[in-house]
Amino acid sequence: MAQGKVACLLGPGFEDSELRIPYDRVRKEGYQVDIIGPKAGMELKGYRGKEAVKADKGIDEVRPEDYIGLLIPGGYSPDHLRVDPRFVEFVKRFDALKRPLAAVCHGPQLLLSARLVRGRTLTAWPTVQVDLELAGADVKDEPVVIDQNWITSRKPEDLEQFSEAFVQALRKTERATAKGEVRV
Amino acid sequence: MAQGKVACLLGPGFEDSELRIPYDRVRKEGYQVDIIGPKAGMELKGYRGKEAVKADKGIDEVRPEDYIGLLIPGGYSPDHLRVDPRFVEFVKRFDALKRPLAAVCHGPQLLLSARLVRGRTLTAWPTVQVDLELAGADVKDEPVVIDQNWITSRKPEDLEQFSEAFVQALRKTERATAKGEVRV
Repeated sequence: MAQGKVACLLGPGFEDSELRIPYDRVRKEGYQVDIIGPKAGMELKGYRGKEAVKADKGIDEVRPEDYIGLLIPGGYSPDHLRVDPRFVEFVKRFDALKRPLAAVCHGPQLLLSARLVRGRTLTAWPTVQVDLELAGADVKDEPVVIDQNWITSRKPEDLEQFSEAFVQALRKTERATAKGEVRV
Repeated sequence: MAQGKVACLLGPGFEDSELRIPYDRVRKEGYQVDIIGPKAGMELKGYRGKEAVKADKGIDEVRPEDYIGLLIPGGYSPDHLRVDPRFVEFVKRFDALKRPLAAVCHGPQLLLSARLVRGRTLTAWPTVQVDLELAGADVKDEPVVIDQNWITSRKPEDLEQFSEAFVQALRKTERATAKGEVRV
Protein backbone atom coordinates (compact mmCIF):
# COMPACT_ATOMS: atom_id res chain seq x y z
CA MET A 1 0.00 0.00 0.00
CA ALA A 2 1.37 3.36 -1.06
CA GLN A 3 2.09 5.99 1.54
CA GLY A 4 1.88 9.71 1.11
CA LYS A 5 -0.58 12.11 -0.37
CA VAL A 6 -0.70 13.76 -3.78
CA ALA A 7 -1.75 17.40 -4.19
CA CYS A 8 -3.91 18.35 -7.17
CA LEU A 9 -4.23 22.09 -7.88
CA LEU A 10 -7.63 22.74 -9.43
CA GLY A 11 -9.64 25.77 -10.54
CA PRO A 12 -12.79 26.34 -12.59
CA GLY A 13 -12.90 25.17 -16.20
CA PHE A 14 -10.38 22.32 -15.96
CA GLU A 15 -10.22 19.80 -18.83
CA ASP A 16 -12.38 16.98 -17.50
CA SER A 17 -10.27 13.97 -18.49
CA GLU A 18 -7.05 15.67 -17.37
CA LEU A 19 -8.37 15.47 -13.82
CA ARG A 20 -10.21 12.15 -14.05
CA ILE A 21 -7.61 9.90 -15.70
CA PRO A 22 -4.50 10.72 -13.60
CA TYR A 23 -6.64 11.09 -10.45
CA ASP A 24 -8.09 7.58 -10.79
CA ARG A 25 -4.72 6.10 -11.75
CA VAL A 26 -2.94 7.60 -8.72
CA ARG A 27 -5.70 6.51 -6.32
CA LYS A 28 -5.74 3.01 -7.79
CA GLU A 29 -2.07 2.87 -6.82
CA GLY A 30 -3.07 3.54 -3.22
CA TYR A 31 -2.23 7.22 -2.93
CA GLN A 32 -4.65 9.70 -1.41
CA VAL A 33 -5.29 12.77 -3.59
CA ASP A 34 -6.25 16.14 -2.11
CA ILE A 35 -7.98 18.44 -4.57
CA ILE A 36 -6.77 21.89 -3.60
CA GLY A 37 -8.84 24.86 -4.74
CA PRO A 38 -9.17 28.50 -3.72
CA LYS A 39 -11.40 27.42 -0.78
CA ALA A 40 -12.28 24.06 0.80
CA GLY A 41 -15.69 22.83 -0.37
CA MET A 42 -15.76 25.05 -3.46
CA GLU A 43 -17.41 23.31 -6.40
CA LEU A 44 -15.19 23.11 -9.47
CA LYS A 45 -16.55 22.07 -12.87
CA GLY A 46 -14.80 20.74 -15.94
CA TYR A 47 -15.43 22.84 -19.05
CA ARG A 48 -16.77 19.84 -20.98
CA GLY A 49 -19.51 19.39 -18.37
CA LYS A 50 -18.50 15.82 -17.51
CA GLU A 51 -16.84 16.34 -14.13
CA ALA A 52 -17.78 18.36 -11.06
CA VAL A 53 -15.80 18.00 -7.84
CA LYS A 54 -15.50 19.76 -4.50
CA ALA A 55 -12.15 21.03 -3.30
CA ASP A 56 -10.92 18.88 -0.39
CA LYS A 57 -8.72 21.69 0.87
CA GLY A 58 -8.31 25.41 0.38
CA ILE A 59 -4.91 26.69 -0.70
CA ASP A 60 -4.47 28.46 2.67
CA GLU A 61 -4.73 25.15 4.59
CA VAL A 62 -1.97 23.21 2.86
CA ARG A 63 1.82 22.99 2.91
CA PRO A 64 3.91 21.65 0.01
CA GLU A 65 5.96 19.50 2.44
CA ASP A 66 2.87 17.42 3.24
CA TYR A 67 2.67 15.98 -0.27
CA ILE A 68 4.75 13.40 -2.09
CA GLY A 69 3.61 14.55 -5.56
CA LEU A 70 1.87 17.41 -7.35
CA LEU A 71 -0.64 17.08 -10.21
CA ILE A 72 -1.70 20.07 -12.35
CA PRO A 73 -4.53 19.33 -14.83
CA GLY A 74 -5.04 21.67 -17.80
CA GLY A 75 -7.94 23.43 -19.52
CA TYR A 76 -8.79 26.94 -18.34
CA SER A 77 -7.98 26.03 -14.72
CA PRO A 78 -4.22 26.86 -14.67
CA ASP A 79 -4.71 30.40 -16.01
CA HIS A 80 -7.40 31.00 -13.37
CA LEU A 81 -5.13 29.67 -10.61
CA ARG A 82 -2.00 31.56 -11.60
CA VAL A 83 -3.68 34.94 -11.18
CA ASP A 84 -3.60 34.09 -7.44
CA PRO A 85 -0.07 34.36 -5.96
CA ARG A 86 -0.83 31.66 -3.34
CA PHE A 87 -0.97 28.98 -6.05
CA VAL A 88 2.17 30.27 -7.76
CA GLU A 89 3.99 30.23 -4.42
CA PHE A 90 2.78 26.70 -3.66
CA VAL A 91 4.19 25.48 -7.00
CA LYS A 92 7.52 27.25 -6.43
CA ARG A 93 7.92 25.79 -2.93
CA PHE A 94 6.80 22.32 -4.01
CA ASP A 95 9.30 22.29 -6.87
CA ALA A 96 12.11 23.20 -4.46
CA LEU A 97 11.44 19.87 -2.69
CA LYS A 98 12.35 18.05 -5.96
CA ARG A 99 9.39 15.68 -5.63
CA PRO A 100 7.38 14.52 -8.69
CA LEU A 101 5.49 17.36 -10.34
CA ALA A 102 3.15 16.37 -13.18
CA ALA A 103 1.57 19.05 -15.41
CA VAL A 104 -0.47 18.50 -18.57
CA CYS A 105 -1.81 20.76 -21.37
CA HIS A 106 -2.12 24.31 -19.94
CA GLY A 107 -0.75 23.07 -16.57
CA PRO A 108 2.77 24.38 -17.33
CA GLN A 109 1.34 27.94 -17.29
CA LEU A 110 1.77 27.68 -13.51
CA LEU A 111 5.46 26.81 -14.03
CA LEU A 112 5.77 29.91 -16.25
CA SER A 113 4.23 32.14 -13.58
CA ALA A 114 6.50 30.56 -10.94
CA ARG A 115 9.42 31.53 -13.23
CA LEU A 116 10.79 28.00 -13.18
CA VAL A 117 11.03 27.10 -16.87
CA ARG A 118 14.22 28.74 -18.14
CA GLY A 119 16.71 25.99 -19.04
CA ARG A 120 14.25 23.19 -18.24
CA THR A 121 13.01 20.60 -20.74
CA LEU A 122 9.25 20.10 -21.01
CA THR A 123 6.13 19.98 -23.14
CA ALA A 124 2.60 21.47 -22.97
CA TRP A 125 -0.45 22.30 -25.08
CA PRO A 126 0.75 23.59 -28.49
CA THR A 127 -0.02 27.27 -27.79
CA VAL A 128 1.73 27.11 -24.40
CA GLN A 129 4.75 25.44 -26.05
CA VAL A 130 5.50 28.78 -27.76
CA ASP A 131 5.27 30.72 -24.48
CA LEU A 132 7.65 28.20 -22.87
CA GLU A 133 10.13 28.41 -25.73
CA LEU A 134 10.10 32.23 -25.62
CA ALA A 135 10.75 31.99 -21.85
CA GLY A 136 13.93 30.01 -22.46
CA ALA A 137 12.73 26.43 -21.99
CA ASP A 138 13.78 23.51 -24.17
CA VAL A 139 10.42 22.37 -25.57
CA LYS A 140 9.75 18.90 -26.94
CA ASP A 141 6.58 18.04 -28.86
CA GLU A 142 6.30 14.54 -27.37
CA PRO A 143 3.57 12.68 -25.40
CA VAL A 144 5.56 12.65 -22.15
CA VAL A 145 8.69 14.61 -21.30
CA ILE A 146 10.60 13.84 -18.10
CA ASP A 147 13.20 16.30 -16.78
CA GLN A 148 14.43 15.72 -13.22
CA ASN A 149 11.26 15.84 -11.07
CA TRP A 150 9.00 17.17 -13.88
CA ILE A 151 6.61 15.03 -15.91
CA THR A 152 4.79 17.00 -18.61
CA SER A 153 2.34 16.13 -21.39
CA ARG A 154 0.47 17.93 -24.17
CA LYS A 155 -3.18 16.89 -24.29
CA PRO A 156 -5.88 14.36 -23.33
CA GLU A 157 -4.54 11.77 -25.82
CA ASP A 158 -1.29 11.63 -23.80
CA LEU A 159 -2.98 10.93 -20.45
CA GLU A 160 -2.33 7.19 -20.14
CA GLN A 161 1.41 7.63 -20.63
CA PHE A 162 1.40 10.76 -18.46
CA SER A 163 -0.36 9.00 -15.56
CA GLU A 164 1.93 5.96 -15.81
CA ALA A 165 5.06 8.14 -15.75
CA PHE A 166 3.73 10.05 -12.73
CA VAL A 167 2.99 6.84 -10.81
CA GLN A 168 6.48 5.50 -11.57
CA ALA A 169 8.02 8.72 -10.26
CA LEU A 170 5.88 8.59 -7.10
CA ARG A 171 6.98 4.99 -6.41
CA LYS A 172 10.60 5.93 -6.92
CA THR A 173 10.28 8.83 -4.47
CA GLU A 174 8.57 6.53 -2.00
CA ARG A 175 11.38 3.99 -2.19
CA ALA A 176 13.91 6.77 -1.62
CA THR A 177 11.82 7.93 1.36
CA ALA A 178 11.75 4.42 2.84
CA LYS A 179 15.55 4.34 2.63
CA GLY A 180 15.70 7.67 4.42
CA GLU A 181 17.05 9.51 1.36
CA VAL A 182 13.98 11.79 1.22
CA ARG A 183 11.86 12.87 4.15
CA VAL A 184 8.13 13.28 3.57
CA MET B 1 -16.82 60.04 -42.69
CA ALA B 2 -14.02 57.59 -41.96
CA GLN B 3 -12.62 55.44 -44.71
CA GLY B 4 -11.14 52.01 -44.38
CA LYS B 5 -12.07 48.81 -42.67
CA VAL B 6 -10.99 47.38 -39.33
CA ALA B 7 -10.30 43.65 -38.90
CA CYS B 8 -11.40 41.96 -35.68
CA LEU B 9 -9.97 38.48 -35.04
CA LEU B 10 -12.49 36.48 -33.04
CA GLY B 11 -12.82 32.92 -31.78
CA PRO B 12 -15.10 31.10 -29.33
CA GLY B 13 -15.21 32.22 -25.70
CA PHE B 14 -14.23 35.86 -26.19
CA GLU B 15 -14.77 38.29 -23.30
CA ASP B 16 -18.10 39.86 -24.23
CA SER B 17 -17.39 43.52 -23.45
CA GLU B 18 -13.94 43.34 -25.06
CA LEU B 19 -15.70 42.83 -28.38
CA ARG B 20 -18.74 45.06 -27.81
CA ILE B 21 -17.16 48.25 -26.46
CA PRO B 22 -14.33 48.78 -28.98
CA TYR B 23 -16.51 47.42 -31.83
CA ASP B 24 -19.26 49.97 -31.17
CA ARG B 25 -16.77 52.81 -30.65
CA VAL B 26 -14.96 52.12 -33.93
CA ARG B 27 -18.22 51.82 -35.90
CA LYS B 28 -19.57 55.02 -34.32
CA GLU B 29 -16.49 56.69 -35.78
CA GLY B 30 -17.59 55.53 -39.24
CA TYR B 31 -15.29 52.57 -39.75
CA GLN B 32 -16.60 49.24 -41.00
CA VAL B 33 -15.54 46.28 -38.85
CA ASP B 34 -15.13 42.77 -40.29
CA ILE B 35 -15.34 40.04 -37.68
CA ILE B 36 -12.90 37.43 -38.93
CA GLY B 37 -13.30 33.89 -37.60
CA PRO B 38 -12.16 30.43 -38.67
CA LYS B 39 -15.02 30.34 -41.24
CA ALA B 40 -17.48 32.95 -42.60
CA GLY B 41 -20.89 32.62 -40.92
CA MET B 42 -19.56 30.69 -37.93
CA GLU B 43 -21.38 31.63 -34.72
CA LEU B 44 -19.07 32.88 -31.98
CA LYS B 45 -20.25 33.34 -28.41
CA GLY B 46 -18.85 35.38 -25.57
CA TYR B 47 -18.07 33.33 -22.46
CA ARG B 48 -20.28 35.50 -20.27
CA GLY B 49 -23.29 34.64 -22.46
CA LYS B 50 -24.06 38.26 -23.34
CA GLU B 51 -22.83 38.41 -26.92
CA ALA B 52 -23.22 36.08 -29.91
CA VAL B 53 -22.04 37.16 -33.36
CA LYS B 54 -21.48 35.59 -36.75
CA ALA B 55 -18.11 35.86 -38.46
CA ASP B 56 -18.34 38.24 -41.43
CA LYS B 57 -15.34 36.61 -43.07
CA GLY B 58 -13.30 33.46 -42.76
CA ILE B 59 -9.57 33.80 -42.20
CA ASP B 60 -8.87 32.29 -45.65
CA GLU B 61 -10.80 35.10 -47.42
CA VAL B 62 -8.94 38.10 -46.03
CA ARG B 63 -5.66 39.94 -46.60
CA PRO B 64 -3.97 42.15 -43.96
CA GLU B 65 -3.43 44.88 -46.59
CA ASP B 66 -7.20 45.40 -46.89
CA TYR B 67 -7.50 46.72 -43.34
CA ILE B 68 -6.53 50.02 -41.75
CA GLY B 69 -6.56 48.60 -38.20
CA LEU B 70 -6.63 45.32 -36.27
CA LEU B 71 -8.61 44.61 -33.08
CA ILE B 72 -7.96 41.53 -30.90
CA PRO B 73 -10.45 41.07 -28.03
CA GLY B 74 -9.50 38.83 -25.09
CA GLY B 75 -11.08 36.06 -23.06
CA TYR B 76 -10.48 32.47 -24.21
CA SER B 77 -10.65 33.52 -27.88
CA PRO B 78 -6.96 34.41 -28.47
CA ASP B 79 -5.67 31.05 -27.19
CA HIS B 80 -8.17 29.25 -29.46
CA LEU B 81 -7.10 31.34 -32.45
CA ARG B 82 -3.36 31.03 -31.96
CA VAL B 83 -3.46 27.25 -32.26
CA ASP B 84 -4.26 27.92 -35.95
CA PRO B 85 -1.21 29.15 -37.91
CA ARG B 86 -3.41 31.18 -40.30
CA PHE B 87 -4.33 33.61 -37.53
CA VAL B 88 -0.74 33.86 -36.31
CA GLU B 89 0.42 34.58 -39.87
CA PHE B 90 -2.30 37.23 -40.33
CA VAL B 91 -1.10 39.04 -37.19
CA LYS B 92 2.54 38.86 -38.26
CA ARG B 93 1.78 40.24 -41.75
CA PHE B 94 -0.57 42.91 -40.42
CA ASP B 95 2.02 44.12 -37.92
CA ALA B 96 4.60 44.42 -40.72
CA LEU B 97 2.32 47.09 -42.29
CA LYS B 98 2.79 49.22 -39.12
CA ARG B 99 -0.92 50.07 -38.95
CA PRO B 100 -2.79 50.35 -35.63
CA LEU B 101 -3.00 47.02 -33.80
CA ALA B 102 -5.13 46.99 -30.63
CA ALA B 103 -5.07 43.96 -28.30
CA VAL B 104 -6.69 43.67 -24.88
CA CYS B 105 -6.51 41.16 -21.98
CA HIS B 106 -5.45 37.77 -23.46
CA GLY B 107 -5.23 39.37 -26.95
CA PRO B 108 -1.43 39.74 -26.73
CA GLN B 109 -1.17 35.91 -26.68
CA LEU B 110 -1.42 36.21 -30.47
CA LEU B 111 1.56 38.61 -30.44
CA LEU B 112 3.49 36.02 -28.38
CA SER B 113 2.70 33.26 -30.88
CA ALA B 114 3.69 35.56 -33.76
CA ARG B 115 7.02 36.03 -31.93
CA LEU B 116 6.71 39.81 -32.07
CA VAL B 117 7.04 40.83 -28.41
CA ARG B 118 10.78 40.78 -27.64
CA GLY B 119 11.93 44.36 -27.01
CA ARG B 120 8.41 45.80 -27.39
CA THR B 121 6.54 47.68 -24.66
CA LEU B 122 3.02 46.52 -23.85
CA THR B 123 0.47 45.34 -21.31
CA ALA B 124 -2.05 42.48 -21.03
CA TRP B 125 -4.13 40.46 -18.54
CA PRO B 126 -2.02 39.94 -15.38
CA THR B 127 -1.21 36.27 -16.08
CA VAL B 128 -0.19 37.06 -19.67
CA GLN B 129 2.01 39.91 -18.40
CA VAL B 130 4.35 37.29 -16.92
CA ASP B 131 4.54 35.34 -20.20
CA LEU B 132 5.34 38.58 -22.04
CA GLU B 133 8.04 39.55 -19.56
CA LEU B 134 9.65 36.10 -19.78
CA ALA B 135 9.59 36.46 -23.59
CA GLY B 136 11.67 39.65 -23.37
CA ALA B 137 8.99 42.34 -23.55
CA ASP B 138 8.95 45.49 -21.45
CA VAL B 139 5.66 45.12 -19.57
CA LYS B 140 3.74 48.00 -18.00
CA ASP B 141 0.83 47.48 -15.63
CA GLU B 142 -1.15 50.46 -16.98
CA PRO B 143 -4.65 50.88 -18.48
CA VAL B 144 -3.35 51.67 -21.98
CA VAL B 145 0.16 51.23 -23.32
CA ILE B 146 1.09 52.64 -26.72
CA ASP B 147 4.29 51.51 -28.47
CA GLN B 148 4.64 52.46 -32.14
CA ASN B 149 1.58 50.91 -33.83
CA TRP B 150 0.53 48.82 -30.79
CA ILE B 151 -2.25 49.78 -28.38
CA THR B 152 -2.64 47.30 -25.51
CA SER B 153 -4.82 47.13 -22.40
CA ARG B 154 -5.31 44.77 -19.45
CA LYS B 155 -9.01 44.15 -18.79
CA PRO B 156 -12.64 45.22 -19.28
CA GLU B 157 -12.22 48.21 -16.93
CA ASP B 158 -9.66 49.68 -19.38
CA LEU B 159 -11.94 49.48 -22.43
CA GLU B 160 -13.02 53.12 -22.71
CA GLN B 161 -9.43 54.35 -22.75
CA PHE B 162 -8.38 51.47 -24.99
CA SER B 163 -11.11 52.20 -27.56
CA GLU B 164 -10.35 55.92 -27.54
CA ALA B 165 -6.63 55.32 -28.12
CA PHE B 166 -7.40 52.92 -30.97
CA VAL B 167 -9.72 55.42 -32.67
CA GLN B 168 -7.10 58.17 -32.35
CA ALA B 169 -4.51 55.89 -33.97
CA LEU B 170 -6.89 54.99 -36.80
CA ARG B 171 -7.57 58.68 -37.50
CA LYS B 172 -3.87 59.43 -37.55
CA THR B 173 -3.24 56.59 -40.02
CA GLU B 174 -6.11 57.84 -42.15
CA ARG B 175 -4.69 61.36 -42.28
CA ALA B 176 -1.30 59.92 -43.28
CA THR B 177 -3.08 57.88 -45.98
CA ALA B 178 -4.86 60.96 -47.30
CA LYS B 179 -1.51 62.71 -47.62
CA GLY B 180 -0.17 59.72 -49.54
CA GLU B 181 2.26 58.74 -46.77
CA VAL B 182 0.54 55.38 -46.29
CA ARG B 183 -1.30 53.38 -48.92
CA VAL B 184 -4.36 51.42 -47.81
